[in-house]
Amino acid sequence: MKVTILTQFPDMFGPVTSSILGRAAEKGLLEISVVNIRDYTLDKHRKTDDTPFGGGAGMVMTPQPAFDALRACGAEGRRILYMSPRGPILDQKLAEDLAQEQEFFILCGHYEGVDERILQAWNMEEVSIGDYILTGGELAAMVLVDCVSRLIPGVLGSGDSLSEESIYSGLLEYPQYTKPRSYDGLDVPEVLFNGNHKLIHLWQYEQSLRLTAQRRPDLLKRYLDSKPNLTKDEKKILERVLQETQSIE
Amino acid sequence: MKVTILTQFPDMFGPVTSSILGRAAEKGLLEISVVNIRDYTLDKHRKTDDTPFGGGAGMVMTPQPAFDALRACGAEGRRILYMSPRGPILDQKLAEDLAQEQEFFILCGHYEGVDERILQAWNMEEVSIGDYILTGGELAAMVLVDCVSRLIPGVLGSGDSLSEESIYSGLLEYPQYTKPRSYDGLDVPEVLFNGNHKLIHLWQYEQSLRLTAQRRPDLLKRYLDSKPNLTKDEKKILERVLQETQSIE
Repeated sequence: MKVTILTQFPDMFGPVTSSILGRAAEKGLLEISVVNIRDYTLDKHRKTDDTPFGGGAGMVMTPQPAFDALRACGAEGRRILYMSPRGPILDQKLAEDLAQEQEFFILCGHYEGVDERILQAWNMEEVSIGDYILTGGELAAMVLVDCVSRLIPGVLGSGDSLSEESIYSGLLEYPQYTKPRSYDGLDVPEVLFNGNHKLIHLWQYEQSLRLTAQRRPDLLKRYLDSKPNLTKDEKKILERVLQETQSIE
Repeated sequence: MKVTILTQFPDMFGPVTSSILGRAAEKGLLEISVVNIRDYTLDKHRKTDDTPFGGGAGMVMTPQPAFDALRACGAEGRRILYMSPRGPILDQKLAEDLAQEQEFFILCGHYEGVDERILQAWNMEEVSIGDYILTGGELAAMVLVDCVSRLIPGVLGSGDSLSEESIYSGLLEYPQYTKPRSYDGLDVPEVLFNGNHKLIHLWQYEQSLRLTAQRRPDLLKRYLDSKPNLTKDEKKILERVLQETQSIE
């Protein structure tokens, strides 16, 4: 996969990008290219933004440098995302969809955003990472690429955590414990040592259910609606947790 | 405000942190300190994680380096966030709440997460930036700090975009345009040139409403429930948009 990120602040991407790339880059499955929009401005002061028409605070990215940068990096006719709180919010489904692409582009805005004509003429797909306001699209782009890069076919091995996640898909993760068994007077739950994988699994499933019921009843409802394929023991646990939390009728 | 970030990957924070700091740092209102958890491990191989009890893929952060790093940086009794998909999702309300703090701490996990005893013993507050899976908590921490730092009292001036945002609070932003009036055959809407600020405002309000109705009916509903204080003209526009989109009965 090739991801081209267009930004006025390319320096933000250095170490983060190499960290995101991680396994995907090692395996040659992901290439990130960062393009400085400022390199394409025809303005003699290298400006890439100007005050908004109609008044208001902040600066807006002008069309010319963005159009020329997009043309120069071959974005014509390709999938181009624009990181913006106006777009649908990133979730695993959108990430999985993007992970199937051979190539896509991301435009990062700053300040008050970009001239709407850039979005229209280039048929950009607005994507948000959440209902909160950031100073620019750069961090949002990094989050999106990090999330997508884990899902590129071939990046995670078969013995890896993706399959694990899918078991509990839709539930919050159960508590994790590692060595030592006892630290500062705090002990790891006994069940994790008994070597009985079925019991361990059921304990973890119960923990996931409880956490989800307490913290994210919306996710629990979606999980129940998805009619998960459960063993008899899992069903018993599910019923017990539902009765106890009474979060669902 | 002082934010201390504890991480196994301090290098990820360099240029991003200075960019996030921006105005808040210039005004001396924000100080970010990045602590390398690895500096506190007593393991001879500088390990900070180990395999999870109960089996499963991935690695889990061990208690010792985290406990010692937290003690060393004075986190005892303070507000400590742990970036995790199990927490409530960041929104402007949580960001505004955090912006009132003098100091807080953020722990970043990686791989399969951290030993649950770290979260319990230090009474950590789990916070998520969205329903998607990242390779680590570092990007999430940057997003949170970026979002919060804009809201620290005194960071944004009075003539700034915060007040602007609050007018349309809860609606998606209207399209922005800047110079030139015509580019590549694409024109800026005429209304933005007529100098009539009331008309411009009403046009922008209508655009915000339309975008929100089309893309985020959930936000529009919340906006209507908040019973916004509208002028007669704004009310007319709201009624028209609601009739046209029929997104709300």
